[in-house]
Amino acid sequence: MSEPCDLSAAEARRLIGARKLSPTELLESSLARIEKTNTTFNAIVAMDAEAARKAAKATEAKLAKGEDIGILGGLPIGVKDLQATAGLRTTKGSLLFKDTVPTQDELGVANVRKAGGVILAKTNTPEFGAGANTRNRVYGATGNPFDPEKTCAGSSGGSAVALALGQVALATGSDLGGSLRTPAGFCGVVGFRPSPGVVPSVERAASLFPFSVNGPMGRTVEDTHLLLMGQIGRDARDPFNSDDNKALPARLVPADIGRMRVAISTDLGCAPIDKDIARIFEARANIVASAFRDSAVATPDFGPAHDTFEVHRCVYFAASHRERYEKMRDQLDRNVIDNVERAMKMSLADVSAAHVAQTQLYNRFIAFFKDYDVLVCPAASVSPFPHKQLFVEEMNGEKMPTYMRWLAITYAPTLALCCGAVLPCGVDHLGMPFGIQVLGPNGADKKVLEVALALEEVLASNPETKRPIPKI
Amino acid sequence: MSEPCDLSAAEARRLIGARKLSPTELLESSLARIEKTNTTFNAIVAMDAEAARKAAKATEAKLAKGEDIGILGGLPIGVKDLQATAGLRTTKGSLLFKDTVPTQDELGVANVRKAGGVILAKTNTPEFGAGANTRNRVYGATGNPFDPEKTCAGSSGGSAVALALGQVALATGSDLGGSLRTPAGFCGVVGFRPSPGVVPSVERAASLFPFSVNGPMGRTVEDTHLLLMGQIGRDARDPFNSDDNKALPARLVPADIGRMRVAISTDLGCAPIDKDIARIFEARANIVASAFRDSAVATPDFGPAHDTFEVHRCVYFAASHRERYEKMRDQLDRNVIDNVERAMKMSLADVSAAHVAQTQLYNRFIAFFKDYDVLVCPAASVSPFPHKQLFVEEMNGEKMPTYMRWLAITYAPTLALCCGAVLPCGVDHLGMPFGIQVLGPNGADKKVLEVALALEEVLASNPETKRPIPKI
Repeated sequence: MSEPCDLSAAEARRLIGARKLSPTELLESSLARIEKTNTTFNAIVAMDAEAARKAAKATEAKLAKGEDIGILGGLPIGVKDLQATAGLRTTKGSLLFKDTVPTQDELGVANVRKAGGVILAKTNTPEFGAGANTRNRVYGATGNPFDPEKTCAGSSGGSAVALALGQVALATGSDLGGSLRTPAGFCGVVGFRPSPGVVPSVERAASLFPFSVNGPMGRTVEDTHLLLMGQIGRDARDPFNSDDNKALPARLVPADIGRMRVAISTDLGCAPIDKDIARIFEARANIVASAFRDSAVATPDFGPAHDTFEVHRCVYFAASHRERYEKMRDQLDRNVIDNVERAMKMSLADVSAAHVAQTQLYNRFIAFFKDYDVLVCPAASVSPFPHKQLFVEEMNGEKMPTYMRWLAITYAPTLALCCGAVLPCGVDHLGMPFGIQVLGPNGADKKVLEVALALEEVLASNPETKRPIPKI
Repeated sequence: MSEPCDLSAAEARRLIGARKLSPTELLESSLARIEKTNTTFNAIVAMDAEAARKAAKATEAKLAKGEDIGILGGLPIGVKDLQATAGLRTTKGSLLFKDTVPTQDELGVANVRKAGGVILAKTNTPEFGAGANTRNRVYGATGNPFDPEKTCAGSSGGSAVALALGQVALATGSDLGGSLRTPAGFCGVVGFRPSPGVVPSVERAASLFPFSVNGPMGRTVEDTHLLLMGQIGRDARDPFNSDDNKALPARLVPADIGRMRVAISTDLGCAPIDKDIARIFEARANIVASAFRDSAVATPDFGPAHDTFEVHRCVYFAASHRERYEKMRDQLDRNVIDNVERAMKMSLADVSAAHVAQTQLYNRFIAFFKDYDVLVCPAASVSPFPHKQLFVEEMNGEKMPTYMRWLAITYAPTLALCCGAVLPCGVDHLGMPFGIQVLGPNGADKKVLEVALALEEVLASNPETKRPIPKI
């Protein structure tokens, strides 16, 4: 591949700044790639090529006048279809919004546009982001870039696929139980789950619920960091937002991991992991570990992670969807209905017990990082499965007790308000992308990104762990 | 009064630094005042005079060697009896802990001690801080410094009384529904409720519950700010703590309120206020308003504040006391039992609805401060009442529906994650202290303190609004 759309976003942005690549040229390359690939994979579900062309031209005009084009100046951006985009259809994967064209960008989109991003397209997501298989009744399923019959995971699946295919330079995601980490792992791209408040979010129905965050996705760590810098900002309406996000460096420098200590865990002590995936992780973990000064097999204790996550998640679903469920149940898909119905059976005592468990887990997680710089574990528990199958029903011969359980490897650290990057790390036993999580505690965003940048280089230099590129 | 213990803490600290007052001299003055007054008022409930004398001597030794004694160096501090103090009995007002002597300071106390504070004594609080009348079965009731048969409010009642009487230079408080604001108002002292996370708290059973905060109390705004500077710090275990607290100035400068706009509200649109108190507030508000460039009678809309507060409070009580309730119900007092029992009847749906209401209220509160610099309202809804009466049962001829309702003037802004100072503002129709709240949105701590400092000067210059001093 040698199209402009296959450049890393950071490299494309440098070339744009140096007038060696025009925003229009880059955009047309993206559009051609979408034209060529989207019918097969269905990552992009709404697009306004003309508006994007105008934005690219406007960037060129600014460049010509020597004006600041912003850190994302001229880069074609995919926006997860949960986020409202002015003038561009925003369905949230729901039949209820299938014809909705917002008049305003939501904050996260407005910030990206303000930073110069060319908002090109919406990327597919399951209904209201519920579930980790990107398919819905508005747009259907999104295929994995390495096998269109398999799932790209979710809920930021469309963004991961669009990136892997070179359809966009950068794409937004969000993450509650792994919604940007699992798709990054399944598609061979990078995703970063920031600490709560780093990317301010003002659309949450319950703003004191910090488990769901918006974050960046890209093909490289540098790209992902670049989008993050366009997403961050100050907004008092997010009670977790603070000036701390200013502590993120404008340019990322690789951490000196040869002086750092890594903890390695296959299952975080609580997550079901497919045997083949565990075996592959353990082999790759050796490569990871050898790049650090020191390593140990260790994990924080996540306690009653499954129940704790389910209760908090139910608070979130009840806050976000209860009214909709009561008034328009027949228009909703099964995941949302199931979550709201489970929520309605729970008590305040369940919530308070989940708070206590979360507090203890959070404190143990923070204490763990006194001994380790980062924690590395698999990005997902299984190899990508056919998207016709709604979720992972069985693993290693055991039936999963809930439709979420296969995501414990990502939702357990969410409970700790972790930040974390997913890095591509070769392919699995079935030739599908394999990813790892690099996790740190709340607020360690800078360190995790710097470690991820250093580790990316290590992984790229080994044929077994380098990022897989889909055939286009 | 002309004893060293009657000096403002800031002045005492300056004299200590200038070697014009020794920590021992100040401490002995405090001890004499306690000796003289405590039998009547019962504010101090545990004390270690010898340990305090040693600490004072140690401070003197440091001074003699030219070492840094800390910003609170040599100042006798009262600690609310909810906070664990190493070697000093800490009962939380509960029979369950009536003989407990912690081996370690909790974080908030350790920070104050590290800043040089001489931890002198524990101040009374209702059992586990539940309720706004400082009385419990371990130590009995604390009397109002202006009438020992009347309540000093609560739950930081002992701290407010100890300050008013000159027993300590500074005292710690905490605030959920007004626990440091109401006592400050009832006793004619200053209290500051910081935004969540400004004073890190790591003892909460549910750390994602931001409504309960620790904060400083003093006789003046400058004193209160001084203690705050000793309480703040960075601790990752409090998820609301951030580097933002570093934005607080080490020295407070009065705001230029002659260029600011104040909103005035008698009842915040939702709080019951005794007619006499309302009348007094409206007269005093004119004096307040005239110090600003501009004023308006206005309030944010607090929506369903009462139900919303009750649900969140129940989550807090269930998280903190459910186990205790189940195992040791007979040892608990009625407020805790009542709160836990109400909690046990509520559902997750109640919690999620309260989250949604809180989010909307929070956003309206923030938006309100685009038009106003601060919001001023009464500190309490009634004049101090006899402490034999557990709470306010009736106001203006109307029965209060819950034992908390009379505190709506303080708990409604709590829901907005406000920060706020209480300032003494003369006496009420019964000659008891009258206070006002100066409120700002989450994160406006610096501004609110600076406004409070400026306003304190205005109030001090008017006989009608100056701080009342109890007869000793």
